[in-house]
Amino acid sequence: MPVVKFLEYVEEHQNDFVERLRKAVAIPSVSGDPAHRQDVFRMADFLIDELKALGASVETRDPGQQDFHGQTLPLPPIVLATVGNDPAKKTILVYGHYDVQPALIEDGWATDPFTLVEDDQHRLIGRGSTDDKGPVLGWINVVEAHKKMGLELPVNLKFCLEGMEESGSEGLDPIIYSEADKYFRDVDAVCISDNYWLGTTKPCLTYGLRGVSYFHLTVKGPRADLHSGVFGGTVHEPMTDLFALMSKLVTPDGKILVPGIYDQVRQVTDEEQKTYDHLAFKMEELHDAVGNKINIHESIRDTLQHRWRFPSLSLHGVEGAFYNPGDKTVVPARVVGKFSIRTVPDMEPEKVTELVKKYVTDEFNKLNSKNSMTIECTHGGNHWLSSPQHPNYVAAAKAVEKVFSVKPDLTREGGSIPVTLSFQEALKKNVLLLPMGRGDDGAHSINEKLDRSNYVSGTKLLGTYLYEVSQVQL
Amino acid sequence: MPVVKFLEYVEEHQNDFVERLRKAVAIPSVSGDPAHRQDVFRMADFLIDELKALGASVETRDPGQQDFHGQTLPLPPIVLATVGNDPAKKTILVYGHYDVQPALIEDGWATDPFTLVEDDQHRLIGRGSTDDKGPVLGWINVVEAHKKMGLELPVNLKFCLEGMEESGSEGLDPIIYSEADKYFRDVDAVCISDNYWLGTTKPCLTYGLRGVSYFHLTVKGPRADLHSGVFGGTVHEPMTDLFALMSKLVTPDGKILVPGIYDQVRQVTDEEQKTYDHLAFKMEELHDAVGNKINIHESIRDTLQHRWRFPSLSLHGVEGAFYNPGDKTVVPARVVGKFSIRTVPDMEPEKVTELVKKYVTDEFNKLNSKNSMTIECTHGGNHWLSSPQHPNYVAAAKAVEKVFSVKPDLTREGGSIPVTLSFQEALKKNVLLLPMGRGDDGAHSINEKLDRSNYVSGTKLLGTYLYEVSQVQL
Repeated sequence: MPVVKFLEYVEEHQNDFVERLRKAVAIPSVSGDPAHRQDVFRMADFLIDELKALGASVETRDPGQQDFHGQTLPLPPIVLATVGNDPAKKTILVYGHYDVQPALIEDGWATDPFTLVEDDQHRLIGRGSTDDKGPVLGWINVVEAHKKMGLELPVNLKFCLEGMEESGSEGLDPIIYSEADKYFRDVDAVCISDNYWLGTTKPCLTYGLRGVSYFHLTVKGPRADLHSGVFGGTVHEPMTDLFALMSKLVTPDGKILVPGIYDQVRQVTDEEQKTYDHLAFKMEELHDAVGNKINIHESIRDTLQHRWRFPSLSLHGVEGAFYNPGDKTVVPARVVGKFSIRTVPDMEPEKVTELVKKYVTDEFNKLNSKNSMTIECTHGGNHWLSSPQHPNYVAAAKAVEKVFSVKPDLTREGGSIPVTLSFQEALKKNVLLLPMGRGDDGAHSINEKLDRSNYVSGTKLLGTYLYEVSQVQL
Repeated sequence: MPVVKFLEYVEEHQNDFVERLRKAVAIPSVSGDPAHRQDVFRMADFLIDELKALGASVETRDPGQQDFHGQTLPLPPIVLATVGNDPAKKTILVYGHYDVQPALIEDGWATDPFTLVEDDQHRLIGRGSTDDKGPVLGWINVVEAHKKMGLELPVNLKFCLEGMEESGSEGLDPIIYSEADKYFRDVDAVCISDNYWLGTTKPCLTYGLRGVSYFHLTVKGPRADLHSGVFGGTVHEPMTDLFALMSKLVTPDGKILVPGIYDQVRQVTDEEQKTYDHLAFKMEELHDAVGNKINIHESIRDTLQHRWRFPSLSLHGVEGAFYNPGDKTVVPARVVGKFSIRTVPDMEPEKVTELVKKYVTDEFNKLNSKNSMTIECTHGGNHWLSSPQHPNYVAAAKAVEKVFSVKPDLTREGGSIPVTLSFQEALKKNVLLLPMGRGDDGAHSINEKLDRSNYVSGTKLLGTYLYEVSQVQL
């Protein structure tokens, strides 16, 4: 049984895999910092070398240049790699990213963020360990194991690795679409390992993501900022109007006040209701993650449904107003309130924008202000919903059972991973989110970690999934 | 008649006075920019040299050091100068400041801000021309005129000139209080020329200022900023609570919603009502100043009363939230809303704070939020009200009539000039605000100017005031 040999190989060679992760973490491929741009390129080279050494055929695509606050920077390459080209086999596309979030020891890291450290609880600590270098190397570990064992992979494997994920995946989408019927032509299914278990104990498959519609609400009055002593009480102040409007968007307990929003939300079926019954999640995990008991809902089901499958509205900030510490008695002339709505099936971004615009305009008219108001949707990313019944998911679930001896949780996420939707729309193939790390890995925080057991079992899972998916009808 | 000779001298030597202003404007004494701190000291030296050359005895007081965002900077000196020491004469203290607001050509100045330019409408354009170098030099011009004419001043004149007015007058108050019964012991009245005519055509005497109480409203929830995708809809968001609370402070047409605030406001008497009848002010001037027709009130009286003698509440901004251009889907963990109330007789800062705290706390409790809220008054500066019937004002009014052949407008201001209250409280003497510039001088804006006629007539006015005040019983 090749899969049994594979699992044994991974178990025995796990230290080699940790060394590979150590080398990768040592390259500070921070895409958001121009000073590290060359490190992002170095990280691409590292992966290209690793893949070539394992016999993969590697190509790159150049996404062009980035305008970074007036500075022109080269974008790191999209790395496309292929292992196996057997027409009799299925072709699985895996996506990952090789850039990382910024990290400075001064931010509060207990150890140097770019030196992988294994602590006494066998946590592999370092920037990018879990997001997303561990999972990317997991796939490479799978290829290495097979090469070393002299085994063929059960599928043709294609890689699509980008270096700008933490900076909005700039330049990726056009390449996905232009390569859809070229490099990606034979792809049968897609697997992305770039999210996390719901909690810390049980693997999951993720089949849904919320979308997000972002709004800018602008109120303009005076030509320039005014002094509140001279003008306070005599003119309509844009901030007063803005706060009046933004206070009418959502209640303190999270109910969206824009009429019509909830009419678009798909009803919860009995079947869906049951999927929330045995999830490996405790309210304490929410409290721990948030650092305070400020939960709106008391039950796990209500909490997770409001994270995953109901919309939410958050106020993010105000552009144009005073934001520094201290006191300043300014009357800002033009303020832009920022808020976003997390969207779910069957909400449509265009309809959401229409409802928001109408409501905010109606409410502004009620204010009888002489200021002017505009509202625009600056970004509308759709939600994404797959099905745990799809063969790609069934295969992954079997792989989880083989490696972990448990059925995976079936989860959705409240955030968005735009590339998921891009692959689905460009390739018209099923996309599976198959996470490696735990919910407490701290992907964008200090002391980011990937437990050794997650890295090793995750590598096993990714390989086993390839065996399982090779057996199903896609 | 010495005063007639004086007026003629000023008229004839006005070009010399403009040259003096040119030299002063050329020193970029920006107190808010550490790079210009030495220029503030240079400006002090310039004034000291000018005063000494005219026979004044000059002393300085060192206000010590400033902590500027962690940088320790020396504070520019308080310049104390005396011209005349005749026990038979009254002693008048004049205050002014020799620092200026920042100014960069890139801000939109039509000409270099630190090169005085006289345009074809005889406007003297340059940073500090009207705020407050022109008025300070006005006093020096008066002294020079008398010295050159071989005349004695009708009063003993004392100067108090500071270099940190545009940066909160750091270090000034302790010196005013400690010198009250020393350097300032013999002072009979105080005159400050650091504000503006109501409009552009008619001089005024200013007898009242609003106070200001500044508030920080803090809402805290999560330990750190959260991702709105992951947590939106499941936790109480501090921004939602903050906007709910701040939207309940003031209506779009400027009515303060804090119960009890208006109970403290002194009633308008019939006599006071009449003082609003013939003021040189048009609604167009408000529209021009604001750059838009966003006036709340339609009449001049209502507008000026709401600027001068009714309280107002302005929302200034939010600390801790997203404030940059673009989109960011953050749920801020701790946000501090900033607002202030302009206060008027007979409001007391302590009572205002008490009412605001009670109201905001009551409203927060109604939200049923699990976040925590605190509200504090970070600054409570009292209002100031003098009387146009005071002999110091009567003298100034006579001086205006002599120089301009009109009765001055009797005005108040909506903003605060804290030093006014400090002098009144420390010296227990009447303080008069006697402006030189026009309402459209743009003191803190680009293209700040002082009309040549205002500079020349203003110099005449300051000198004539000294003659008039020497004749009254203080």
